[in-house]
Amino acid sequence: MNNTIKQQLNHRTIRQFTDEPISQEIIDTLVSVAQATSTSNYMQSYSIISITDKVKKKAIASIGAQPYIEHVGHLFIFVIDQHRNATIAKEGNIEDIEVLQTFDRMMIGYTDAILAAQNTMVAIESMGMGGVFLGSILNDAQAIINVLELPEYVFPVLGLGFGYPNQEPQLKPRMPQHLMHFENRYPKVDSITNAMCDYDETVTEYYDLRDANKRIDSFTNQIKQSMSRRHPGRMQLKETMNKQKLGIK
Amino acid sequence: MNNTIKQQLNHRTIRQFTDEPISQEIIDTLVSVAQATSTSNYMQSYSIISITDKVKKKAIASIGAQPYIEHVGHLFIFVIDQHRNATIAKEGNIEDIEVLQTFDRMMIGYTDAILAAQNTMVAIESMGMGGVFLGSILNDAQAIINVLELPEYVFPVLGLGFGYPNQEPQLKPRMPQHLMHFENRYPKVDSITNAMCDYDETVTEYYDLRDANKRIDSFTNQIKQSMSRRHPGRMQLKETMNKQKLGIK
Repeated sequence: MNNTIKQQLNHRTIRQFTDEPISQEIIDTLVSVAQATSTSNYMQSYSIISITDKVKKKAIASIGAQPYIEHVGHLFIFVIDQHRNATIAKEGNIEDIEVLQTFDRMMIGYTDAILAAQNTMVAIESMGMGGVFLGSILNDAQAIINVLELPEYVFPVLGLGFGYPNQEPQLKPRMPQHLMHFENRYPKVDSITNAMCDYDETVTEYYDLRDANKRIDSFTNQIKQSMSRRHPGRMQLKETMNKQKLGIK
Repeated sequence: MNNTIKQQLNHRTIRQFTDEPISQEIIDTLVSVAQATSTSNYMQSYSIISITDKVKKKAIASIGAQPYIEHVGHLFIFVIDQHRNATIAKEGNIEDIEVLQTFDRMMIGYTDAILAAQNTMVAIESMGMGGVFLGSILNDAQAIINVLELPEYVFPVLGLGFGYPNQEPQLKPRMPQHLMHFENRYPKVDSITNAMCDYDETVTEYYDLRDANKRIDSFTNQIKQSMSRRHPGRMQLKETMNKQKLGIK
Protein backbone atom coordinates (compact mmCIF):
# COMPACT_ATOMS: atom_id res chain seq x y z
CA MET A 1 0.00 0.00 0.00
CA ASN A 2 1.28 3.47 -0.88
CA ASN A 3 -0.15 6.86 -1.86
CA THR A 4 -0.39 6.06 -5.56
CA ILE A 5 -2.34 2.86 -4.93
CA LYS A 6 -4.48 4.55 -2.29
CA GLN A 7 -5.40 7.14 -4.91
CA GLN A 8 -6.09 4.48 -7.54
CA LEU A 9 -8.36 2.49 -5.21
CA ASN A 10 -10.17 5.74 -4.46
CA HIS A 11 -10.87 6.53 -8.12
CA ARG A 12 -14.27 7.88 -9.00
CA THR A 13 -15.51 9.62 -12.10
CA ILE A 14 -15.89 13.39 -11.74
CA ARG A 15 -18.45 15.16 -13.93
CA GLN A 16 -18.83 18.51 -12.18
CA PHE A 17 -15.94 20.93 -11.98
CA THR A 18 -15.18 24.29 -10.38
CA ASP A 19 -14.29 27.29 -12.56
CA GLU A 20 -10.60 27.12 -11.54
CA PRO A 21 -8.64 27.29 -14.79
CA ILE A 22 -6.03 24.71 -15.78
CA SER A 23 -2.64 26.17 -16.65
CA GLN A 24 -0.76 25.46 -19.87
CA GLU A 25 2.03 24.03 -17.69
CA ILE A 26 -0.36 21.38 -16.34
CA ILE A 27 -1.56 20.51 -19.86
CA ASP A 28 2.04 20.14 -21.07
CA THR A 29 2.95 17.93 -18.08
CA LEU A 30 -0.08 15.70 -18.71
CA VAL A 31 0.90 15.27 -22.37
CA SER A 32 4.44 14.40 -21.23
CA VAL A 33 3.00 11.72 -18.96
CA ALA A 34 0.89 10.39 -21.86
CA GLN A 35 4.04 10.27 -23.99
CA ALA A 36 6.00 8.41 -21.30
CA THR A 37 3.49 5.53 -21.50
CA SER A 38 4.59 2.29 -23.16
CA THR A 39 3.98 2.27 -26.92
CA SER A 40 3.81 -0.77 -29.17
CA ASN A 41 6.95 -1.25 -31.28
CA TYR A 42 8.00 2.29 -30.35
CA MET A 43 5.68 3.53 -33.11
CA GLN A 44 3.73 6.06 -30.99
CA SER A 45 0.65 5.41 -33.14
CA TYR A 46 -1.75 7.78 -31.40
CA SER A 47 -2.27 11.50 -30.90
CA ILE A 48 -4.10 13.80 -28.52
CA ILE A 49 -6.36 16.66 -29.57
CA SER A 50 -7.12 19.38 -27.01
CA ILE A 51 -10.51 20.97 -27.49
CA THR A 52 -10.41 24.63 -26.47
CA ASP A 53 -12.84 26.02 -29.02
CA LYS A 54 -16.21 26.56 -27.34
CA VAL A 55 -18.25 25.79 -30.44
CA LYS A 56 -16.42 22.48 -30.93
CA LYS A 57 -16.80 21.62 -27.23
CA LYS A 58 -20.52 22.24 -27.52
CA ALA A 59 -20.71 20.06 -30.64
CA ILE A 60 -18.91 17.22 -28.83
CA ALA A 61 -21.22 17.58 -25.80
CA SER A 62 -24.16 17.30 -28.15
CA ILE A 63 -22.72 14.22 -29.93
CA GLY A 64 -22.10 12.57 -26.54
CA ALA A 65 -25.53 13.70 -25.31
CA GLN A 66 -23.79 14.78 -22.10
CA PRO A 67 -24.22 18.54 -21.53
CA TYR A 68 -21.58 18.56 -18.74
CA ILE A 69 -18.86 18.02 -21.38
CA GLU A 70 -19.26 21.73 -22.19
CA HIS A 71 -18.17 22.63 -18.67
CA VAL A 72 -15.11 20.43 -18.13
CA GLY A 73 -11.91 22.30 -17.24
CA HIS A 74 -10.08 20.81 -20.21
CA LEU A 75 -10.94 18.24 -22.86
CA PHE A 76 -8.56 15.75 -24.49
CA ILE A 77 -9.60 13.46 -27.35
CA PHE A 78 -7.33 10.42 -27.80
CA VAL A 79 -7.12 9.18 -31.39
CA ILE A 80 -5.55 6.21 -33.14
CA ASP A 81 -3.02 7.89 -35.42
CA GLN A 82 -1.46 6.00 -38.33
CA HIS A 83 -1.61 9.15 -40.47
CA ARG A 84 1.66 10.56 -39.14
CA ASN A 85 3.39 7.27 -39.93
CA ALA A 86 1.73 7.12 -43.36
CA THR A 87 3.08 10.60 -44.09
CA ILE A 88 6.61 9.66 -42.98
CA ALA A 89 6.47 6.66 -45.31
CA LYS A 90 5.16 8.69 -48.24
CA GLU A 91 7.80 11.38 -47.68
CA GLY A 92 10.38 8.57 -47.78
CA ASN A 93 8.98 7.36 -51.11
CA ILE A 94 7.56 4.16 -49.65
CA GLU A 95 4.64 3.46 -51.94
CA ASP A 96 3.06 0.41 -50.31
CA ILE A 97 1.51 1.49 -47.01
CA GLU A 98 -1.39 -0.93 -47.20
CA VAL A 99 -0.31 -2.61 -43.95
CA LEU A 100 -1.78 0.40 -42.11
CA GLN A 101 -5.23 -0.88 -43.11
CA THR A 102 -4.79 -4.15 -41.21
CA PHE A 103 -6.58 -4.99 -37.99
CA ASP A 104 -3.12 -5.44 -36.46
CA ARG A 105 -2.01 -1.82 -36.96
CA MET A 106 -5.42 -0.55 -35.86
CA MET A 107 -5.12 -2.55 -32.61
CA ILE A 108 -1.59 -1.23 -32.07
CA GLY A 109 -2.78 2.37 -32.31
CA TYR A 110 -5.88 1.61 -30.25
CA THR A 111 -3.82 0.08 -27.44
CA ASP A 112 -1.31 2.96 -27.49
CA ALA A 113 -4.12 5.53 -27.25
CA ILE A 114 -5.95 3.86 -24.36
CA LEU A 115 -2.82 3.12 -22.33
CA ALA A 116 -1.87 6.80 -22.66
CA ALA A 117 -5.38 7.91 -21.68
CA GLN A 118 -5.34 5.92 -18.42
CA ASN A 119 -1.84 7.11 -17.54
CA THR A 120 -3.08 10.67 -18.03
CA MET A 121 -6.07 10.00 -15.75
CA VAL A 122 -3.75 8.82 -12.95
CA ALA A 123 -1.63 11.97 -13.34
CA ILE A 124 -4.76 14.17 -13.28
CA GLU A 125 -5.91 12.61 -10.01
CA SER A 126 -2.43 12.85 -8.47
CA MET A 127 -2.69 16.64 -8.96
CA GLY A 128 -5.93 16.82 -6.96
CA MET A 129 -8.06 17.08 -10.07
CA GLY A 130 -10.65 14.60 -11.32
CA GLY A 131 -11.79 13.37 -14.71
CA VAL A 132 -14.35 11.55 -16.79
CA PHE A 133 -13.70 9.23 -19.72
CA LEU A 134 -16.00 9.95 -22.62
CA GLY A 135 -16.75 6.82 -24.60
CA SER A 136 -19.81 8.77 -25.69
CA ILE A 137 -17.77 10.43 -28.46
CA LEU A 138 -18.41 7.18 -30.34
CA ASN A 139 -22.16 7.80 -30.40
CA ASP A 140 -21.41 9.42 -33.75
CA ALA A 141 -17.78 8.81 -34.69
CA GLN A 142 -18.28 10.36 -38.14
CA ALA A 143 -19.47 13.61 -36.57
CA ILE A 144 -16.37 13.68 -34.31
CA ILE A 145 -14.18 13.01 -37.36
CA ASN A 146 -15.78 15.99 -39.08
CA VAL A 147 -15.50 18.32 -36.08
CA LEU A 148 -11.82 17.45 -35.51
CA GLU A 149 -11.03 17.28 -39.25
CA LEU A 150 -9.42 13.86 -38.83
CA PRO A 151 -7.71 12.62 -42.00
CA GLU A 152 -7.47 9.02 -43.24
CA TYR A 153 -5.76 6.60 -40.83
CA VAL A 154 -6.99 8.54 -37.78
CA PHE A 155 -9.90 7.45 -35.59
CA PRO A 156 -11.18 8.82 -32.24
CA VAL A 157 -11.32 6.28 -29.41
CA LEU A 158 -11.79 8.07 -26.09
CA GLY A 159 -12.38 11.53 -24.66
CA LEU A 160 -11.08 12.66 -21.28
CA GLY A 161 -12.62 15.69 -19.59
CA PHE A 162 -11.01 16.93 -16.40
CA GLY A 163 -10.65 19.76 -13.92
CA TYR A 164 -10.97 20.58 -10.24
CA PRO A 165 -13.83 18.53 -8.71
CA ASN A 166 -17.02 20.18 -7.58
CA GLN A 167 -18.64 16.97 -6.34
CA GLU A 168 -17.76 14.00 -4.15
CA PRO A 169 -19.41 10.91 -5.59
CA GLN A 170 -19.46 7.57 -3.74
CA LEU A 171 -17.18 4.71 -4.72
CA LYS A 172 -19.01 2.46 -7.20
CA PRO A 173 -18.81 -1.18 -6.09
CA ARG A 174 -17.06 -3.73 -8.32
CA MET A 175 -17.83 -7.43 -8.74
CA PRO A 176 -16.04 -10.03 -6.54
CA GLN A 177 -12.52 -10.71 -7.83
CA HIS A 178 -13.07 -14.44 -8.30
CA LEU A 179 -15.59 -13.63 -11.05
CA MET A 180 -13.08 -11.63 -13.15
CA HIS A 181 -9.59 -12.86 -12.14
CA PHE A 182 -8.83 -16.43 -13.16
CA GLU A 183 -5.81 -18.72 -13.09
CA ASN A 184 -4.32 -20.36 -16.18
CA ARG A 185 -7.65 -20.84 -17.97
CA TYR A 186 -11.06 -19.32 -18.40
CA PRO A 187 -13.20 -21.25 -15.93
CA LYS A 188 -16.56 -22.89 -16.44
CA VAL A 189 -18.94 -21.46 -13.83
CA ASP A 190 -22.14 -23.17 -12.72
CA SER A 191 -24.24 -20.06 -12.24
CA ILE A 192 -22.89 -16.53 -12.45
CA THR A 193 -26.24 -15.09 -11.35
CA ASN A 194 -26.07 -17.06 -8.09
CA ALA A 195 -22.42 -16.10 -7.58
CA MET A 196 -23.43 -12.44 -8.00
CA CYS A 197 -26.29 -12.52 -5.49
CA ASP A 198 -24.54 -10.52 -2.77
CA TYR A 199 -22.96 -8.20 -5.31
CA ASP A 200 -26.37 -7.50 -6.84
CA GLU A 201 -27.58 -6.43 -3.39
CA THR A 202 -24.55 -4.16 -2.88
CA VAL A 203 -25.15 -2.47 -6.24
CA THR A 204 -28.84 -1.96 -5.52
CA GLU A 205 -27.98 -0.40 -2.17
CA TYR A 206 -25.40 1.86 -3.84
CA TYR A 207 -28.03 3.26 -6.23
CA ASP A 208 -30.51 3.61 -3.40
CA LEU A 209 -28.06 5.71 -1.38
CA ARG A 210 -27.03 7.76 -4.40
CA ASP A 211 -30.48 8.85 -5.41
CA ALA A 212 -33.54 7.41 -3.71
CA ASN A 213 -35.77 8.72 -6.48
CA LYS A 214 -33.92 7.09 -9.33
CA ARG A 215 -34.55 3.66 -10.81
CA ILE A 216 -32.67 1.16 -8.67
CA ASP A 217 -31.12 -1.78 -10.40
CA SER A 218 -28.92 -4.73 -9.61
CA PHE A 219 -25.82 -5.46 -11.69
CA THR A 220 -27.26 -8.54 -13.39
CA ASN A 221 -30.45 -6.64 -14.27
CA GLN A 222 -28.39 -3.88 -15.86
CA ILE A 223 -26.50 -6.45 -17.92
CA LYS A 224 -29.72 -8.15 -19.01
CA GLN A 225 -31.19 -4.82 -20.08
CA SER A 226 -28.02 -3.94 -21.99
CA MET A 227 -28.69 -6.78 -24.43
CA SER A 228 -31.48 -4.82 -26.12
CA ARG A 229 -29.60 -1.49 -26.07
CA ARG A 230 -28.44 -0.61 -29.57
CA HIS A 231 -27.50 3.02 -30.01
CA PRO A 232 -28.05 3.62 -33.76
CA GLY A 233 -24.88 5.74 -34.12
CA ARG A 234 -22.74 3.15 -32.34
CA MET A 235 -23.92 0.45 -34.74
CA GLN A 236 -21.93 2.29 -37.48
CA LEU A 237 -18.53 2.10 -35.76
CA LYS A 238 -17.07 -0.60 -37.97
CA GLU A 239 -18.07 1.13 -41.21
CA THR A 240 -16.83 4.51 -40.00
CA MET A 241 -13.50 3.07 -38.91
CA ASN A 242 -13.09 1.27 -42.24
CA LYS A 243 -13.90 4.52 -44.05
CA GLN A 244 -10.89 6.03 -42.24
CA LYS A 245 -8.85 3.14 -43.78
CA LEU A 246 -8.36 1.41 -40.42
CA GLY A 247 -9.09 -2.15 -39.30
CA ILE A 248 -10.17 -3.33 -42.75
CA LYS A 249 -8.03 -6.43 -43.38
CA MET B 1 4.99 17.75 -10.12
CA ASN B 2 4.56 15.04 -7.49
CA ASN B 3 5.85 11.53 -6.80
CA THR B 4 3.26 9.80 -8.96
CA ILE B 5 4.04 11.97 -11.98
CA LYS B 6 7.78 11.70 -11.33
CA GLN B 7 7.39 7.93 -11.45
CA GLN B 8 5.26 8.09 -14.60
CA LEU B 9 7.77 10.30 -16.42
CA ASN B 10 10.45 7.83 -15.37
CA HIS B 11 8.66 4.81 -16.87
CA ARG B 12 10.74 2.26 -18.71
CA THR B 13 9.94 -1.26 -19.76
CA ILE B 14 11.58 -3.94 -17.58
CA ARG B 15 12.31 -7.32 -19.16
CA GLN B 16 14.74 -8.84 -16.65
CA PHE B 17 13.66 -9.66 -13.12
CA THR B 18 15.23 -10.94 -9.91
CA ASP B 19 14.02 -14.20 -8.36
CA GLU B 20 12.20 -12.36 -5.56
CA PRO B 21 8.73 -13.89 -5.40
CA ILE B 22 5.57 -11.82 -5.60
CA SER B 23 3.13 -12.40 -2.77
CA GLN B 24 -0.53 -13.29 -3.21
CA GLU B 25 -1.34 -10.09 -1.30
CA ILE B 26 0.40 -8.03 -4.00
CA ILE B 27 -1.46 -9.86 -6.77
CA ASP B 28 -4.79 -9.27 -5.03
CA THR B 29 -4.01 -5.57 -4.54
CA LEU B 30 -3.08 -5.20 -8.22
CA VAL B 31 -6.35 -6.82 -9.28
CA SER B 32 -8.20 -4.44 -6.93
CA VAL B 33 -6.47 -1.52 -8.64
CA ALA B 34 -7.44 -2.91 -12.05
CA GLN B 35 -11.03 -3.20 -10.85
CA ALA B 36 -11.05 0.38 -9.55
CA THR B 37 -10.36 1.65 -13.10
CA SER B 38 -13.19 3.35 -14.99
CA THR B 39 -15.34 0.90 -16.94
CA SER B 40 -17.67 1.72 -19.82
CA ASN B 41 -21.35 1.73 -18.82
CA TYR B 42 -20.38 0.00 -15.57
CA MET B 43 -20.34 -3.29 -17.52
CA GLN B 44 -16.83 -4.45 -16.45
CA SER B 45 -16.47 -6.18 -19.83
CA TYR B 46 -12.96 -7.57 -19.31
CA SER B 47 -11.18 -10.18 -17.21
CA ILE B 48 -7.63 -10.95 -16.09
CA ILE B 49 -6.01 -14.36 -16.32
CA SER B 50 -2.95 -15.03 -14.14
CA ILE B 51 -0.54 -17.50 -15.69
CA THR B 52 1.18 -19.54 -12.98
CA ASP B 53 1.47 -22.85 -14.82
CA LYS B 54 5.03 -23.20 -16.12
CA VAL B 55 4.03 -25.12 -19.24
CA LYS B 56 1.51 -22.44 -20.19
CA LYS B 57 4.02 -19.68 -19.48
CA LYS B 58 6.50 -21.40 -21.76
CA ALA B 59 3.87 -21.76 -24.48
CA ILE B 60 3.06 -18.03 -24.25
CA ALA B 61 6.79 -17.15 -24.38
CA SER B 62 7.05 -19.24 -27.51
CA ILE B 63 3.97 -17.62 -29.13
CA GLY B 64 5.37 -14.17 -28.32
CA ALA B 65 8.86 -15.25 -29.48
CA GLN B 66 10.21 -13.59 -26.33
CA PRO B 67 11.98 -16.12 -24.10
CA TYR B 68 12.13 -13.66 -21.17
CA ILE B 69 8.35 -14.07 -20.72
CA GLU B 70 9.14 -17.41 -19.06
CA HIS B 71 11.08 -15.62 -16.33
CA VAL B 72 8.76 -12.77 -15.37
CA GLY B 73 7.78 -12.68 -11.70
CA HIS B 74 4.10 -12.83 -12.54
CA LEU B 75 2.10 -12.79 -15.75
CA PHE B 76 -1.33 -11.25 -16.31
CA ILE B 77 -3.27 -11.61 -19.57
CA PHE B 78 -5.98 -8.98 -20.05
CA VAL B 79 -8.95 -10.19 -22.12
CA ILE B 80 -12.06 -8.60 -23.56
CA ASP B 81 -14.81 -10.48 -21.74
CA GLN B 82 -18.39 -10.39 -23.00
CA HIS B 83 -18.84 -14.06 -22.06
CA ARG B 84 -19.70 -13.32 -18.44
CA ASN B 85 -22.36 -10.85 -19.57
CA ALA B 86 -23.64 -13.32 -22.18
CA THR B 87 -24.01 -15.94 -19.43
CA ILE B 88 -25.89 -13.54 -17.15
CA ALA B 89 -28.27 -12.77 -20.02
CA LYS B 90 -28.80 -16.45 -20.87
CA GLU B 91 -29.39 -17.31 -17.21
CA GLY B 92 -32.01 -14.53 -17.19
CA ASN B 93 -33.72 -16.08 -20.25
CA ILE B 94 -32.70 -13.26 -22.56
CA GLU B 95 -32.53 -14.98 -25.91
CA ASP B 96 -31.26 -12.21 -28.16
CA ILE B 97 -27.65 -11.44 -27.23
CA GLU B 98 -26.55 -10.65 -30.77
CA VAL B 99 -25.56 -7.12 -29.73
CA LEU B 100 -22.42 -8.65 -28.17
CA GLN B 101 -21.19 -9.33 -31.69
CA THR B 102 -21.14 -5.64 -32.62
CA PHE B 103 -17.99 -3.59 -33.04
CA ASP B 104 -19.40 -1.31 -30.33
CA ARG B 105 -19.40 -3.95 -27.59
CA MET B 106 -16.01 -5.22 -28.69
CA MET B 107 -14.58 -1.70 -28.38
CA ILE B 108 -16.18 -1.29 -24.95
CA GLY B 109 -14.48 -4.45 -23.67
CA TYR B 110 -11.23 -3.53 -25.40
CA THR B 111 -11.14 -0.10 -23.80
CA ASP B 112 -12.00 -1.51 -20.36
CA ALA B 113 -9.20 -4.09 -20.61
CA ILE B 114 -6.49 -1.65 -21.72
CA LEU B 115 -7.42 1.06 -19.20
CA ALA B 116 -7.20 -1.57 -16.44
CA ALA B 117 -3.85 -2.83 -17.77
CA GLN B 118 -2.23 0.63 -17.63
CA ASN B 119 -3.64 1.34 -14.16
CA THR B 120 -2.08 -1.96 -13.05
CA MET B 121 1.27 -0.96 -14.57
CA VAL B 122 1.28 2.29 -12.56
CA ALA B 123 0.53 0.35 -9.36
CA ILE B 124 3.32 -2.14 -10.14
CA GLU B 125 5.85 0.66 -10.54
CA SER B 126 4.64 2.43 -7.40
CA MET B 127 5.61 -0.73 -5.46
CA GLY B 128 9.19 -0.60 -6.77
CA MET B 129 8.57 -3.32 -9.32
CA GLY B 130 8.71 -3.01 -13.11
CA GLY B 131 6.80 -4.51 -16.00
CA VAL B 132 6.55 -5.20 -19.70
CA PHE B 133 3.44 -5.07 -21.85
CA LEU B 134 3.21 -8.05 -24.16
CA GLY B 135 1.43 -7.16 -27.39
CA SER B 136 3.31 -10.16 -28.73
CA ILE B 137 0.55 -12.48 -27.46
CA LEU B 138 -1.27 -11.39 -30.63
CA ASN B 139 1.37 -13.01 -32.84
CA ASP B 140 -0.94 -16.02 -32.70
CA ALA B 141 -4.18 -15.07 -30.98
CA GLN B 142 -5.75 -18.44 -31.78
CA ALA B 143 -2.92 -20.25 -29.96
CA ILE B 144 -3.43 -18.00 -26.90
CA ILE B 145 -7.17 -18.70 -27.04
CA ASN B 146 -6.41 -22.44 -27.02
CA VAL B 147 -3.84 -22.24 -24.20
CA LEU B 148 -6.17 -20.16 -21.98
CA GLU B 149 -9.30 -22.07 -23.07
CA LEU B 150 -11.09 -18.81 -23.88
CA PRO B 151 -14.78 -19.33 -24.73
CA GLU B 152 -16.83 -17.37 -27.26
CA TYR B 153 -17.06 -13.61 -26.59
CA VAL B 154 -13.58 -13.55 -25.01
CA PHE B 155 -10.45 -12.27 -26.77
CA PRO B 156 -6.92 -11.62 -25.45
CA VAL B 157 -5.64 -8.08 -25.95
CA LEU B 158 -2.54 -7.51 -23.83
CA GLY B 159 -0.14 -9.38 -21.56
CA LEU B 160 1.62 -7.77 -18.61
CA GLY B 161 4.70 -9.43 -17.14
CA PHE B 162 6.17 -7.91 -13.99
CA GLY B 163 8.46 -8.40 -11.03
CA TYR B 164 11.43 -6.86 -9.24
CA PRO B 165 13.78 -5.27 -11.81
CA ASN B 166 17.17 -6.74 -12.54
CA GLN B 167 18.14 -4.09 -15.08
CA GLU B 168 18.18 -0.31 -15.41
CA PRO B 169 17.39 0.60 -18.99
CA GLN B 170 17.68 4.14 -20.31
CA LEU B 171 14.65 6.35 -20.89
CA LYS B 172 13.51 5.94 -24.51
CA PRO B 173 13.06 9.36 -26.14
CA ARG B 174 9.62 10.39 -27.40
CA MET B 175 8.77 12.66 -30.34
CA PRO B 176 8.30 16.42 -29.81
CA GLN B 177 4.88 17.21 -28.36
CA HIS B 178 3.82 19.51 -31.19
CA LEU B 179 3.85 16.48 -33.52
CA MET B 180 1.33 14.49 -31.45
CA HIS B 181 -0.67 17.03 -29.40
CA PHE B 182 -2.93 19.26 -31.46
CA GLU B 183 -5.57 21.90 -30.77
CA ASN B 184 -9.16 21.68 -32.02
CA ARG B 185 -8.30 19.96 -35.31
CA TYR B 186 -5.85 17.54 -36.88
CA PRO B 187 -3.31 19.86 -38.52
CA LYS B 188 -1.89 19.77 -42.02
CA VAL B 189 1.89 19.58 -41.69
CA ASP B 190 4.29 20.57 -44.48
CA SER B 191 6.95 17.94 -43.82
CA ILE B 192 6.93 15.61 -40.84
CA THR B 193 10.35 14.22 -41.79
CA ASN B 194 11.88 17.70 -41.54
CA ALA B 195 10.07 18.40 -38.28
CA MET B 196 11.52 15.16 -36.92
CA CYS B 197 15.12 15.88 -37.90
CA ASP B 198 16.41 16.59 -34.38
CA TYR B 199 14.29 13.79 -32.94
CA ASP B 200 15.75 11.33 -35.44
CA GLU B 201 19.22 12.28 -34.22
CA THR B 202 18.21 11.81 -30.57
CA VAL B 203 16.81 8.35 -31.31
CA THR B 204 19.93 7.31 -33.22
CA GLU B 205 22.09 8.46 -30.32
CA TYR B 206 19.89 6.53 -27.86
CA TYR B 207 20.42 3.26 -29.76
CA ASP B 208 24.11 3.98 -30.09
CA LEU B 209 24.46 4.38 -26.32
CA ARG B 210 22.30 1.34 -25.60
CA ASP B 211 24.20 -1.11 -27.71
CA ALA B 212 27.00 0.06 -29.98
CA ASN B 213 26.98 -3.25 -31.82
CA LYS B 214 23.31 -3.20 -32.73
CA ARG B 215 21.74 -1.74 -35.84
CA ILE B 216 21.25 1.96 -35.21
CA ASP B 217 18.18 3.54 -36.65
CA SER B 218 16.38 6.85 -36.63
CA PHE B 219 12.68 7.05 -35.80
CA THR B 220 11.56 7.86 -39.34
CA ASN B 221 13.65 4.98 -40.73
CA GLN B 222 12.00 2.58 -38.29
CA ILE B 223 8.57 3.78 -39.39
CA LYS B 224 9.48 3.43 -43.07
CA GLN B 225 10.72 -0.11 -42.49
CA SER B 226 7.56 -1.00 -40.55
CA MET B 227 5.51 -0.57 -43.74
CA SER B 228 6.79 -3.88 -45.12
CA ARG B 229 6.55 -5.74 -41.79
CA ARG B 230 3.64 -8.16 -41.90
CA HIS B 231 3.79 -10.84 -39.23
CA PRO B 232 1.75 -13.72 -40.76
CA GLY B 233 0.03 -14.56 -37.45
CA ARG B 234 -0.94 -10.95 -36.84
CA MET B 235 -2.60 -10.76 -40.26
CA GLN B 236 -5.25 -13.19 -38.90
CA LEU B 237 -6.40 -10.99 -36.01
CA LYS B 238 -9.68 -9.92 -37.53
CA GLU B 239 -10.71 -13.47 -38.47
CA THR B 240 -9.72 -14.85 -35.07
CA MET B 241 -11.61 -12.14 -33.24
CA ASN B 242 -14.70 -12.70 -35.40
CA LYS B 243 -14.45 -16.45 -34.72
CA GLN B 244 -14.77 -15.57 -31.02
CA LYS B 245 -18.03 -13.79 -32.01
CA LEU B 246 -16.59 -10.32 -31.36
CA GLY B 247 -16.38 -7.23 -33.58
CA ILE B 248 -18.37 -8.76 -36.42
CA LYS B 249 -21.15 -6.24 -37.12
